[in-house]
Formats: sequence, structure tokens, C-alpha cells
Amino acid sequence: MPVVFQIGLLGLGTVGTGTANIILNPEQRHPLVRELNIAQVGVRSPDKARSVDLPPEVVTTDLDGIVTNPDIDIVVEVMGGIEPARSLVLKAIQHGKHVVTANKALIARHSDEIFTAAEAAGVYVLLEAAVGGGIPVIEPLKQSLCANRIDCITGILNGTTNYILTRMQQEGGDFEEILADAQELGYAEADPTADVDGFDAADKIAIVAALAYGGRINLDEVYCEGIRQITATDIDYADRLGFVIKLLATARRDRQSSQSSQSDRLEVRVHPTLVPKEHPLANVNDVFNAILVEGDPIGQVMFYGPGAGSGPTASAVVSDILNVAALLKVERSGSTKPDGTPMLDPLLAPSHQHYCSIRPIDDLETRFYTRLLAKDEPGVIGTLGICFGKNNVSLESIVQIDKHNEQAEIVIVTHKVREGNVRQALKAIRDFDVVEYVPGILRVLD
Amino acid sequence: MPVVFQIGLLGLGTVGTGTANIILNPEQRHPLVRELNIAQVGVRSPDKARSVDLPPEVVTTDLDGIVTNPDIDIVVEVMGGIEPARSLVLKAIQHGKHVVTANKALIARHSDEIFTAAEAAGVYVLLEAAVGGGIPVIEPLKQSLCANRIDCITGILNGTTNYILTRMQQEGGDFEEILADAQELGYAEADPTADVDGFDAADKIAIVAALAYGGRINLDEVYCEGIRQITATDIDYADRLGFVIKLLATARRDRQSSQSSQSDRLEVRVHPTLVPKEHPLANVNDVFNAILVEGDPIGQVMFYGPGAGSGPTASAVVSDILNVAALLKVERSGSTKPDGTPMLDPLLAPSHQHYCSIRPIDDLETRFYTRLLAKDEPGVIGTLGICFGKNNVSLESIVQIDKHNEQAEIVIVTHKVREGNVRQALKAIRDFDVVEYVPGILRVLD
Repeated sequence: MPVVFQIGLLGLGTVGTGTANIILNPEQRHPLVRELNIAQVGVRSPDKARSVDLPPEVVTTDLDGIVTNPDIDIVVEVMGGIEPARSLVLKAIQHGKHVVTANKALIARHSDEIFTAAEAAGVYVLLEAAVGGGIPVIEPLKQSLCANRIDCITGILNGTTNYILTRMQQEGGDFEEILADAQELGYAEADPTADVDGFDAADKIAIVAALAYGGRINLDEVYCEGIRQITATDIDYADRLGFVIKLLATARRDRQSSQSSQSDRLEVRVHPTLVPKEHPLANVNDVFNAILVEGDPIGQVMFYGPGAGSGPTASAVVSDILNVAALLKVERSGSTKPDGTPMLDPLLAPSHQHYCSIRPIDDLETRFYTRLLAKDEPGVIGTLGICFGKNNVSLESIVQIDKHNEQAEIVIVTHKVREGNVRQALKAIRDFDVVEYVPGILRVLD
Repeated sequence: MPVVFQIGLLGLGTVGTGTANIILNPEQRHPLVRELNIAQVGVRSPDKARSVDLPPEVVTTDLDGIVTNPDIDIVVEVMGGIEPARSLVLKAIQHGKHVVTANKALIARHSDEIFTAAEAAGVYVLLEAAVGGGIPVIEPLKQSLCANRIDCITGILNGTTNYILTRMQQEGGDFEEILADAQELGYAEADPTADVDGFDAADKIAIVAALAYGGRINLDEVYCEGIRQITATDIDYADRLGFVIKLLATARRDRQSSQSSQSDRLEVRVHPTLVPKEHPLANVNDVFNAILVEGDPIGQVMFYGPGAGSGPTASAVVSDILNVAALLKVERSGSTKPDGTPMLDPLLAPSHQHYCSIRPIDDLETRFYTRLLAKDEPGVIGTLGICFGKNNVSLESIVQIDKHNEQAEIVIVTHKVREGNVRQALKAIRDFDVVEYVPGILRVLD
């Protein structure tokens, strides 16, 4: 019987529901997901209809009871807001619970007391979901880029403003009208202040800067300017100058002081910025987020993906839960397996031993591109079409592109078909008298 | 005195030198870097001139002595090739050393015996540098995306072929001529087979697929097709159809079987592919790599960056070393600190307590964009220019764009200047009689 890690979930809104749905559906995920159990879920209204199937006895309005419950190993705070989230997280820590949170506003304002309490209690507070939704940002900075000296982090960290700016860019509209439309479509909140005035992005860059530069950030010192004053005229002029306007969040180590770690000064700021069109961040559009990390010796790396939403954010929350569970598993085993060999972190040590079954390439189903040279005679395209049809290859287009020296070059794109059938058709076609040359096939990305 | 982790480095080529350089220069990196010590470095020619400053007594030609040295905690294999790397890694594992390797060819072919030996010995074998150079790929898949059901991974994983295809796309040249040029410039090897025939990308996607789908991959079953047959004509036709041609490495869970984990079948394949121009992978050019992961519930995330090179690859190698060191640190402490509280993984638990010093926005130095409405009178641009000059704001351009109702709209872009000076200049300009309206400033990304 596997060890089970007991989870207390604070909140069952969008992210909480997404989190529960992953834990309740462990198939094809990391085997450790099966060792998670949702012991309690704290909600405000227990009778509200939900899209997740939880036994009624785990749902409670007694949130205090969850964070003090001695059976619970990991408290997952996905309720948002400052209070009561702050008090509950602190109480959970005092009771020796590890904490996973998606609450950027809380961490950006109260990381000081929260991390101090966590350090004293010897528990983890993980917060991958607080920045960039599902995009791995926090953990890569902690674990994959930890050898680097981080020079600069530049991110598009707020989906709502990026959506508005993208539409302003594409449609030429003004801020107010597109904001109203975004609110109607659910991309912006009724009170859009946190997003459009840059505060949400400021919370996130403060969290990332603290990690990257190993010091706390006073949020009041983060310069923050939103996108309300951006007009269609600015976007138009920027476009003529070769730029797009993006709301960028930046954390940069002051170049003057970069040689002496004692006198480090940082720039941490959020403001609309003219981004050269060929820059990787210029093509991050709509509600997508991206974060560009520049360091020594890595150079530039960029992480791109969905910056919000139930599923992506829950992906980050559950991954944090699994990271804590993996460490607890090693700790509880006393660092050794029953046979006496060291117990390894189950996320870091691949222990699979079976071979995957791999589909032969002939069974691949995708779209194909091919071209061929044929004699320029009437009926060639018909002959080719019939041959493809006989082999169950449905064509999307067949076009004669060039004609020279009595030869016609014909380009063919298929619908999604089986590769084996395409090969069979081409084998037959190569033998046609009218066909001079068939260079091969190329596959088309779906 | 901190715990010190003893590193044995096998190889002092490009990646080995980069690795040593990070460890020998720990300033402004994670504090744990200071606890790493290069105990021994194994090389073939000890007298070769190197760009790294190591005490002569650590350099040895006795590689066997390194992997059996009882003082060494972590063996770092950056010599490449199959033998003697394979035998040395296996011997290191048998002697209880943790292993960090950048050797994709070795892992893709011998992961079976290596991971089996590591499991039996209870040691870690980490290999972030084997795929995507410095781009975090392996660890995010293991730790940040572990809650997901991975549907598909699509990557541009070979820099040489991406460089060649990018130039073919941009210049319209044919494969052979651009390959020759790439060889001359050092972007392709004298024997380019591993790159241009897709074998390097196949090694990498096999490693990634094993991780993502939790099973081993038989490299012989990975379909592999390179870019030798791609012609300027194909690139031209693809362009007309709205595509670019990229060498993609793909690992996909067979959709038919995606509901039953028992009968999983994978597609694992490398081949040139027509990629729609608006797809995120279409804009990954030159020697850059990118990997797109699609999963449930995350949706799509993409990791982008330098796929090779001394610095980026060393970044991944040293990060792996630090991950092992962090786990060893907890283990050696007996999981508790001297005061009895639990010892936490130093990479996951931020323990900084000081506040970072943040530069005020007035001290920011960057380029600025601003525009203003002025009366359409002679000399306005001169007056503005003088005012900016007085405030030490050097201008890149000042252009009158539109003129209507006796008003001229003037757009100004500065060189890199101090923000405080720009604000001071604009304050003065707002008081000019000829100036009607100054909406504010926008910063320009460097």
C-alpha cells in the first residue's frame, strides 16, 4: 500500500476545482499523483453546485479546522485575497504543514513573515502558480537556472493587458472600447484596476526578482505604470517605428554594480514598453504570458504559455504538491528503502523499467506535402488524383505550379491520411510513364 | 565552515571548461555554488593549454581513479562519446557516486543499464544538459509539469540543422552550399552526419519521451529522417503555401489509445516538417532550440533558448550538480538543523532575509519615446531640441508626423538617457506656449 499524503484545500473556485480534478483523475500522470488524497476542502458555501465530484464529508466551512488538522500534510491555499488567506497560511505553517499557494498578492506583500515563519517551522512554501499560471517559472529559476548569475528578467506577466494591447494593435481601437469589450467577453474583470494599472504584474515581478536575486523586495519600491494612457495613436506611431507596445515587467541587476555583490541595486518596474518587432516578446499575443531570463552563462531563455486559467494554474499547484510529497516520501522512509539502498526523490530518479510501445511510421496519420515533375500532357492531374484515391489518400490540393521544357511541376497537399497509404500511392505513381521525378514527402504539422 | 561537495570532472573540453568556470566563480550565483569543490579533473592531455585556472594537482589522466575515488561525491561526465564514457559512468555508479552527464548519445543508447545500476546503487543520474543545451527541459518535465498528462512534445532540438534551414529560408540557397558555409563558420562539424541526418535530434527526443511517458524508448524504433533532401524549391513552395520547413522531433501519445494507459502507443519521430508560419515553432531561427509541450490540463507551454554552446550547457550541468548537492545536504544533516528544526532543500526553500536595494525610477537609463502636439510654427523643433539638450537628453530622432488644424504632432525618440532628465525636460516643455499637449513617455526596450 502506498504512502498517502493528505491534502487540505482552502478554496474551491476555478483553481481549486482544477486542482481537485487532477488529483481525482491520476491516470497517465506521474504515479505519485495516486498517493495524494484530498482530506478536506474548505469553502464558504458548502451547498454550491460544483463541477468536481468530491464526497460531501470532505467539504467544510471550518477553514481553521483544516489548517490545524493533525492528519493534514500539505495545505493548498487557492482562495485568493489577503485575509483570511494570510492568517490561515501562517497558522498552517505554525502547525507544521507545508503550504502550496497560488496567491501572488499575498506573497508579494507578506513573503517576509510567511517565509520567516516557514523557515522557523521547517516547512516548504511553494508558489509556482503565483507567476505565469501554468508556465514553469519559479521552479526553473530555483532549480534549473541556479548556477547562473541572473542579469535581467523581462516578462509579459498579465494576460488581460496583453489581450487588450494585442487587440489595440490588431484592430487599431482605443483602450476604453476594447477594455469594455474584454470585460463583456470575460477577459477583464468588472473592476480591472489590478490588471490594467499594472499591480498584478508588479506583484509577480516582485516575487520573481526576490528569487532571482536572493533578497526580499519591498513592493512599494516597485515602479508601476499601467496601460490606461496608451492610445491608438501611440500604437500606430510605434508600429511605424518598428515596435509593438507591451506591458513589460522587468527586474534587472544594476549594471554599474554588477561586479560587486555587496552594493547590488536592482531595477524592478512595470510599464508599457516599445518592443522591437523582431524581439521574442513582441510575438507573445492575446492572453499568453512569457518570461525572458538573461543570465551568465546561459544567455537568453524564454518560457511561454498560458498565464492563467483553471487548468494551467492547477497544473502548477499540483506539481508543487508533488514536489513536497516527493521530499516527504524520502524523509518518511528514513532515506532508505526496505532493502537498505538509499531512497531517491521519486520525481528526480526515473524508475520506469518497461519499454514504451512505438507506432511504426507507416501508421502515422498527418497531412503530407509532396511535389513531382510530370510530362506536360492533358489528364496528368486526373491520373494522379485517381491513384491517390485508390490508395485512400484524400487530397487537400493538387496544383500545377511551374511549367518548363514540356515538364510540369505539381505540388500536392493531402488531408490527414495514413503515411503507409501515401507511400503506396507514390510507389505506384513513380512507375507512371508521364511522371519523371518524385523527390519524396514532407509531413505537415497539424 | 560549509559542507563541501567534491566534484570529479571527466573531460575538460568546451562544456567541462564552462562547468569549471562557473564553480570557480561563485559570486552572485546561488550560495550553494560556494560549497562545490573541483577535486579532480580527468583529461587526455594534461599539458594542453586551457582557458580555466585549475591547480595542476587536480588534473589527471587517470579517469578510473576519479570514478573510484572515495572522496568524490558527484562525477560529472562531459567527455562525450560512448566509450569510455559508458564504462566510467557505470563504474562511478557502482562506487556510489551520483552522476551528472551531458551525454545524449550515451543516455539514448544505454539508459537501460545506467538507470538500472543507479536504482540499485541508490544514486541520481541527472542529464539536463543532454537536451536543449541550457534550456531547462528535463527538470521542468520532471518537476514542474509532473501533474500533467503529456499529449505531445514537439521540438527543434538540433541547432546545426535549424541554422542551415533558417539560412536556406532567408537566402534561398540549396542545402549543400549552405552546409559547406556552416562548416567553415563552425556551425556544422566536418562530419555532419549526426546533425543533418537527424540522429542527434533522435537521441534527444528519445530521452524526453522516456521521461514524459514514463517508459524506456528503443532508439531503433525512432523514425529518423534528416534534411539532406530539402531543396530551395521545397522551401519556396512551402513558403507560398504559408509554411516554413523545420526539422522537428516529435513524441506523441497515440490518440486512439489515450484513454487506456495499458495499451499506450507512442509516436516518436524526427523529420523535416512544414510548420505554419503563425505557429510558435516557426519563428525559432538560427542555432536556437525550442520545445513545445502539450498536456492536460496545462495546454501548451514552450521553452526557448540556446540549444548548445559552452556557457549554456555548463549552466545546465552545474544546476544538476547543485540539485544533487541540495539533496545530499539535507541527507547529511540527518534531515534536521542544529536547533532541531527540519532541514529544508536549500534550492526550494528561500532563506534570504535582507531586502534588496531598488533603484528609483528617475535613475533608470533607457531609450524613451514621447510625442507632443505643438502649434505649427517655424522653429518649434529647434526649441524642443535645445530644451532636451539643456537637460542632457540626447535625441535619436525628432519627427513631425502629422499636421492638422494648425497643429503639428511631433514624435521623439531619445538615445539611452536618464529618466529623471527626460521628465525634467518634459516639465519645461509643457510650459512652452507653442506646446499644446504632452501625453507622457513610453520606455523602449534595449
